[in-house]
Amino acid sequence: MTRLAVLGCGRIGQMHARNIARHSRTTLGAVFDVHRPAAEAIAAETGARITDTADEIFSNPDIDGVVISTSTDTHVTMIEAGVAAGKPMLCEKPIDLDLDRVNACAHLLSKGEVPVMLGFVRRFDPSHGAVRSAIANGDVGELHQVVITSRDPDLAPEAYLKVSGGIFRDMTIHDFDMARFILNEEIDTVFASGSRLVAPDLMDRLDDFDTVSIIMTTASGKQCVIGNSRRSVYGYDQRVEAFGSNGMASSENRKPHAMVLSGGGFSGKAAPCLDFFIERYNDAFNAEIDAFADVVEHGAPPPVSFEDGRQAQRLAEAALKSATGHRPVKMKEID
Amino acid sequence: MTRLAVLGCGRIGQMHARNIARHSRTTLGAVFDVHRPAAEAIAAETGARITDTADEIFSNPDIDGVVISTSTDTHVTMIEAGVAAGKPMLCEKPIDLDLDRVNACAHLLSKGEVPVMLGFVRRFDPSHGAVRSAIANGDVGELHQVVITSRDPDLAPEAYLKVSGGIFRDMTIHDFDMARFILNEEIDTVFASGSRLVAPDLMDRLDDFDTVSIIMTTASGKQCVIGNSRRSVYGYDQRVEAFGSNGMASSENRKPHAMVLSGGGFSGKAAPCLDFFIERYNDAFNAEIDAFADVVEHGAPPPVSFEDGRQAQRLAEAALKSATGHRPVKMKEID
Amino acid sequence: MTRLAVLGCGRIGQMHARNIARHSRTTLGAVFDVHRPAAEAIAAETGARITDTADEIFSNPDIDGVVISTSTDTHVTMIEAGVAAGKPMLCEKPIDLDLDRVNACAHLLSKGEVPVMLGFVRRFDPSHGAVRSAIANGDVGELHQVVITSRDPDLAPEAYLKVSGGIFRDMTIHDFDMARFILNEEIDTVFASGSRLVAPDLMDRLDDFDTVSIIMTTASGKQCVIGNSRRSVYGYDQRVEAFGSNGMASSENRKPHAMVLSGGGFSGKAAPCLDFFIERYNDAFNAEIDAFADVVEHGAPPPVSFEDGRQAQRLAEAALKSATGHRPVKMKEID
Amino acid sequence: MTRLAVLGCGRIGQMHARNIARHSRTTLGAVFDVHRPAAEAIAAETGARITDTADEIFSNPDIDGVVISTSTDTHVTMIEAGVAAGKPMLCEKPIDLDLDRVNACAHLLSKGEVPVMLGFVRRFDPSHGAVRSAIANGDVGELHQVVITSRDPDLAPEAYLKVSGGIFRDMTIHDFDMARFILNEEIDTVFASGSRLVAPDLMDRLDDFDTVSIIMTTASGKQCVIGNSRRSVYGYDQRVEAFGSNGMASSENRKPHAMVLSGGGFSGKAAPCLDFFIERYNDAFNAEIDAFADVVEHGAPPPVSFEDGRQAQRLAEAALKSATGHRPVKMKEID
Repeated sequence: MTRLAVLGCGRIGQMHARNIARHSRTTLGAVFDVHRPAAEAIAAETGARITDTADEIFSNPDIDGVVISTSTDTHVTMIEAGVAAGKPMLCEKPIDLDLDRVNACAHLLSKGEVPVMLGFVRRFDPSHGAVRSAIANGDVGELHQVVITSRDPDLAPEAYLKVSGGIFRDMTIHDFDMARFILNEEIDTVFASGSRLVAPDLMDRLDDFDTVSIIMTTASGKQCVIGNSRRSVYGYDQRVEAFGSNGMASSENRKPHAMVLSGGGFSGKAAPCLDFFIERYNDAFNAEIDAFADVVEHGAPPPVSFEDGRQAQRLAEAALKSATGHRPVKMKEID
Repeated sequence: MTRLAVLGCGRIGQMHARNIARHSRTTLGAVFDVHRPAAEAIAAETGARITDTADEIFSNPDIDGVVISTSTDTHVTMIEAGVAAGKPMLCEKPIDLDLDRVNACAHLLSKGEVPVMLGFVRRFDPSHGAVRSAIANGDVGELHQVVITSRDPDLAPEAYLKVSGGIFRDMTIHDFDMARFILNEEIDTVFASGSRLVAPDLMDRLDDFDTVSIIMTTASGKQCVIGNSRRSVYGYDQRVEAFGSNGMASSENRKPHAMVLSGGGFSGKAAPCLDFFIERYNDAFNAEIDAFADVVEHGAPPPVSFEDGRQAQRLAEAALKSATGHRPVKMKEID
Repeated sequence: MTRLAVLGCGRIGQMHARNIARHSRTTLGAVFDVHRPAAEAIAAETGARITDTADEIFSNPDIDGVVISTSTDTHVTMIEAGVAAGKPMLCEKPIDLDLDRVNACAHLLSKGEVPVMLGFVRRFDPSHGAVRSAIANGDVGELHQVVITSRDPDLAPEAYLKVSGGIFRDMTIHDFDMARFILNEEIDTVFASGSRLVAPDLMDRLDDFDTVSIIMTTASGKQCVIGNSRRSVYGYDQRVEAFGSNGMASSENRKPHAMVLSGGGFSGKAAPCLDFFIERYNDAFNAEIDAFADVVEHGAPPPVSFEDGRQAQRLAEAALKSATGHRPVKMKEID
Repeated sequence: MTRLAVLGCGRIGQMHARNIARHSRTTLGAVFDVHRPAAEAIAAETGARITDTADEIFSNPDIDGVVISTSTDTHVTMIEAGVAAGKPMLCEKPIDLDLDRVNACAHLLSKGEVPVMLGFVRRFDPSHGAVRSAIANGDVGELHQVVITSRDPDLAPEAYLKVSGGIFRDMTIHDFDMARFILNEEIDTVFASGSRLVAPDLMDRLDDFDTVSIIMTTASGKQCVIGNSRRSVYGYDQRVEAFGSNGMASSENRKPHAMVLSGGGFSGKAAPCLDFFIERYNDAFNAEIDAFADVVEHGAPPPVSFEDGRQAQRLAEAALKSATGHRPVKMKEID
């Protein structure tokens, strides 16, 4: 059994803690949160030990790997500590809102002695993964266009949005990674259009967008479209469409159950989409832990690397520059 | 152009008249109805001639073929006149409510000099036809089970129901034919269960059923289930499912348009099924006229024969005997 | 935490043991199997204790409730031991192949001091459950027809089939329970038709059927159709359709992922159905443990009772009598 | 009956001629084509008269309205002749490849004495129309994002592509009109990205694109994405998705039949999309003739105006400027 610890017991940290505790290959050794009651609650539920500091976890020889789900501004510090301690890490996205810090961290990691896996969980989703497989096995043929739809069920609280870095760095970053995962080729140009339609006053206050549409192109001319909204009343809308010379592979939405109702004047009425990431990507989060266990146990290279995290953030920077500058941005402009 | 005439200008006769008038291979030469205003209306719309009697149509050398959509009790008389006149006929179902008359008529037709095609229009439906093709080309493998669902949008008027011969002879007869079309093997045993749930008082008065479930088996053990209801509030529910050793082919419902709505608490809400047979089987009715034109022009054997009509009626008799006698009925009991 | 034990560590017992070990409300206290290595494997995986006898479990005050997944012929003995020990039990179906033993056991349980819950897991399926809710909340209106489709991916091994009691007692029994769950009214008459199409030689040898179609009716005239096959090449086909005066609620099949492929000559090609009960009813098995924990902790009445198990078996007996006697069987004939 | 004539008997002119001849409200008075055999073939099929010149049709008092489906470069000349003759016209898109000529023609028509209806047939599609209705009736709420997918089954012949004006003016123009139809607000900015992926050599030769992705925004911040490809091996992919504050309305693809196949390793395999515009928009083309008959008979204002045609062409010009200039283009730059 791989012994893992979780740093940061917010919503996603709690979920990781539970998944790890229940997972057949892992045990939850310890949890830490700067706000101790958050750690206490999940410790009580899972039987994990609580530590007073993150360092106690990094220095504990009984911990084989660490999941970093603290607040974004502490990720790089945690990674540095983990590298010093030689502990494999699974770090939530984004790495840091400041690309310079990310680049410096990349430099630190360049020796490759301590593996850092990035938490782009959607890569582990069976449906999105099947799109990638359909491309890999030739069912789609030569890839031409990718369309990624990603709409959250609702706005996060203002307090969170304030420190999130904005929609591109916080929300679209998953779609930037999905684009790279599906395209299997680096992005060359980004054009982003941002609007304030869901909560215009709040967005004005935050100088942020709640509705974005993006076109990205690769050097070979492949096109990728991303559509985001911060509020979707029919649930968490998560779709990927890959179109190519031999056909199209689409990852469709999933529902909590498969009951369908027909009545006077309608047919086919189904449940809304699964509510949010914890429900929608439940299988994926477990598969992510599985993949991280492979990294920890066997030293397997992380299937989602720090560099994947850095590239997604470069795309977020490019999108922000594009949306605010109203022009397409070349990726070589971003460093 | 094949010149056709329509005898009987009720709802289905009017539809045939319009289809024939618009069809690229046929012209509508004449129409007749015992109730002259019914004929006049469709004649005015299509430019067809009206005759005072059916005989004028049968004796008219300018008429190449005749569609019989008069009331059921006159079908056999019309067929006899058509045979005497040597005119190919397309006769609506059922042939006659009295199986003895049907058998006598079969005897008359046994020389095969004058082709009579039966109006089992569903055989020409592209979706049901694709189920049969999937069986023929091996996609289903060896056929094991067939499930036919057929629910009318609503009860016909009481005046019609009174003379319809009951649900088995009037409504299920199409499903009996579909069963034979899909099974491609004769039925050996019929067990039918009839209930009065949609309009119990009316059904009591008519000594009829409005809700039936039927199991039929062939000598080789294939099973066919039919489910009927006289009222389906989400439209005309018309499905066929064929299950076998290699897979399943299903003919699903069709909708008037493909708009799908998702909103607060639901997703996938679509239009109800197409309203009734004129809408649902529109393509099939045109294909039926096409097939009848082949019979008339080229002397092609009718793709749906008088014998098909007779067999479906034998099944209706068996079902009635089963539902009222509460026992499975062997087809050899019916003659 | 509710401390449960599992008696019988075959395929379904192992699954229960894992589910209990991982469940947030339960711990797996002990496991037992007459074939000790089977118990050892699951004990090693879950950390549960192994006992040499079932009695050790029944007499252990640290065990709050017992899951009985031993071979069918031992169920009644286990229940008797559990009653003597006062331990709440969750017993797999069928209770016993001999209805007389079932009736005797029912008599023993009639005082109701020790709760016995029956393992009809499909009642806990979110999609089937949503059909029942749609009826309960009036979306379906007055219920008229129920269609249950249940096709296994493949034949069980001959060794198992030999002792299974035949298709009605082993496989259809789940559908009989589903019929009662959805109809919410007792069955009055059963007509079953059995064929040997999947593996005719084996079925001849076993004097069993591999393909069955059943019509059941209630006193009020509701109709329920069940279709079963022992082999479905596109996966485990599990559907429920409830049709009534206000509409239709259907529980559709579930797939392992939602990727859909379109290519030259086709569209919409999706994954096959989830493989078998462990995959398809995964959520339901966990919800079943949840419900059993309620029974154990709070003394809640079992949501699926021993009487539900007995009634499903009476229906299996009626179906067997009908299929072999080629006649509808009244439930009052079965005692 | 409204008497219509068809100028230009190419593929779409032939289709209009047939639809008019079969339509219950219209008769086909005359047809003309510069290549007389093209006119002869359709005249023979429909019984319409052939004229030697277009003028004969414009000057014929027996012709109530004219469908212009000649080559694009003659549209303006035909419209001028029609205005002089006072004949209502239904003109195929695009009006002219030269926006200056279009603007001059708009000036001529500004008195509004002679109605000109534009052939944006997709506005009459029941599914796309239902999306617009869902917006109009509030089901979508405040509109935020529109996604239009439009992929042709295959490249037109090179000879046609050479004179087509390029993908934006020839193909995307329908989607530009659909965007305006669904958004119900004028476009402010266009960003287009064009690639050569389907037939790179041919596109190089023609200096055209075969794969385009477009983002358009309105002044209020609504976003519209268009995705086009010249080749889709699974048929003519025609979808519209409208997302807003209350939900999403989607117009899904239509198939020639509703048979669905499940087999070893797959489920849900359906027919490909309907082949191309004649099949896909069959109902819409008939509804378009219906709407034109209203214009001709009752002087109803054309539901798709010349100005709609001009605006779509301005969008095409903007898209071309954007794709070749690699920058977003403001609509006020285009005149």
